[in-house]
Amino acid sequence: MYAIGVDLGATFVKIGLVDNKGKVYFRRKIETPPGADKTLLIDSIVNNVKDVIKESGKQVYGIGIGVPGPVDSQKGIVHYFPNIKGWKEVPLKAILEKKLGLRVMLDNDVNAMTLGEFVFGAGKECDNLVCLTLGTGVGGGIIIDGKLYRGGSMTAGEIGHMPINETGPKCNCGGIACLERYVGNRYILERAKKAFGSNITLEALTSLAKSGNKKAVAIWTDVAEKLSVALVEVVNLLNPDKIVIGGGISKAGELILSPLKRQIRARAMKDQAKHVKIALAKLGADAGIIGASLLIKLK
Amino acid sequence: MYAIGVDLGATFVKIGLVDNKGKVYFRRKIETPPGADKTLLIDSIVNNVKDVIKESGKQVYGIGIGVPGPVDSQKGIVHYFPNIKGWKEVPLKAILEKKLGLRVMLDNDVNAMTLGEFVFGAGKECDNLVCLTLGTGVGGGIIIDGKLYRGGSMTAGEIGHMPINETGPKCNCGGIACLERYVGNRYILERAKKAFGSNITLEALTSLAKSGNKKAVAIWTDVAEKLSVALVEVVNLLNPDKIVIGGGISKAGELILSPLKRQIRARAMKDQAKHVKIALAKLGADAGIIGASLLIKLK
Repeated sequence: MYAIGVDLGATFVKIGLVDNKGKVYFRRKIETPPGADKTLLIDSIVNNVKDVIKESGKQVYGIGIGVPGPVDSQKGIVHYFPNIKGWKEVPLKAILEKKLGLRVMLDNDVNAMTLGEFVFGAGKECDNLVCLTLGTGVGGGIIIDGKLYRGGSMTAGEIGHMPINETGPKCNCGGIACLERYVGNRYILERAKKAFGSNITLEALTSLAKSGNKKAVAIWTDVAEKLSVALVEVVNLLNPDKIVIGGGISKAGELILSPLKRQIRARAMKDQAKHVKIALAKLGADAGIIGASLLIKLK
Repeated sequence: MYAIGVDLGATFVKIGLVDNKGKVYFRRKIETPPGADKTLLIDSIVNNVKDVIKESGKQVYGIGIGVPGPVDSQKGIVHYFPNIKGWKEVPLKAILEKKLGLRVMLDNDVNAMTLGEFVFGAGKECDNLVCLTLGTGVGGGIIIDGKLYRGGSMTAGEIGHMPINETGPKCNCGGIACLERYVGNRYILERAKKAFGSNITLEALTSLAKSGNKKAVAIWTDVAEKLSVALVEVVNLLNPDKIVIGGGISKAGELILSPLKRQIRARAMKDQAKHVKIALAKLGADAGIIGASLLIKLK
């Protein structure tokens, strides 16, 4: 049995044919047309999906699509994209189903990634799982009793907007002292610039820390400590089996993971801290495609 | 159809016969034998349950019991009680089933109260509900997709131990800056003593605030603001339909509720804030009995 997974991002659209073991075939990565209007972007998805199906010669059961913004996954409507203009209450599911003649399911990208890690990645064999993506934004997905939990109005999982202090910097979301405001890419880079006196990439910051540079290590440790406050909130509230961490910043690996585990052990309640495992995501660049394809298969 | 609900507390044991509409008959409230050894307390429960069943003349389907401490609700084992000595890994379900010849289910008191409010109280018609009890301790219960969510090792819902700051006072649980450390009864009373120069009860503090005393109002507003930080965490993470607040402190009513709602509207993400309702618990002193009885009926 095969499904198509589409990972729609603000920079790239990734497409692949996925089998029922999570293996990806006929990968395709295309640039999201810059400043693309809606029609152009949709046509590009449609054409590329058709090509992949044709190339593969397989019978495809449906198309799952993960998108970078809030959706109504039941009705298949995109509310809007924070980083792609011109999308407002777009019935993407209906549009694609009409153009492709196949069943289409959509969800936001973090939920798709969470499904992927839950079924085939670092979250296998967990019933209660929290996935976290660290990048420009900080997102989260929740599996409860073996099922994706979307929340009362399909906006659950906003770990990046859990406050970690009573007072603090104002966040774009309107909140105060949100986690993202401390550990989003931009804020790490700002801190690095202050520490080193010039712009420096996250990759360079990681290399420096790995070679023992104290200022760089201190920045990553601080990121991990901020992160740990939000994750102690999650661990004591949800008592999850596992927390899986993905996204760009997670490439810092043990630089974040070690202090993070130490802090959670120190601050979370004993039983919850003992129970929860903390791990890096496993599916890497394919997470989006695989997870999106599962929107079809699991349903 | 009838079940018995038992609300086992450190001070009182409450027992009642409950019908399938949540109505309580043959209420009984007995003092928990002070420094009671286990056998004495269990015998007291058994005898009183037998009496209630006999008096009622009804056919009883089973006995649900809510207890003040962590349990394995599947195996029916009490891990321990923080405020009643001598209980350690007690197979209370098996003991009571043998002595009563009826099916027994147990859970912690907050989960029982949450079930009660969900089925018959302020949380009716919500699929995703969070209940909060404010008292000496601050506890929480979670309903997800219409079902009690207990967590990976049955210790979910510890809202009282979600940190609301990176740094802050140390909590009994081993954590730092836990919500309970700011809004548990004891800490409110400490603050009141400081403000008024002498010991003052929570009831007096509420009366003073209601009559416009500025120092008293300021204390309740501060309690509400601390509470709101933890609830913004909950709202952005879980996107619940409703948050129901019970327990002693909730008697302060609007003194807490108004600033709390204002803060959540101001700080939580827009869609989540708009979606969630905040309400006081409805079942009052019967919540424990009704909720416990539902452990049987709902299974």
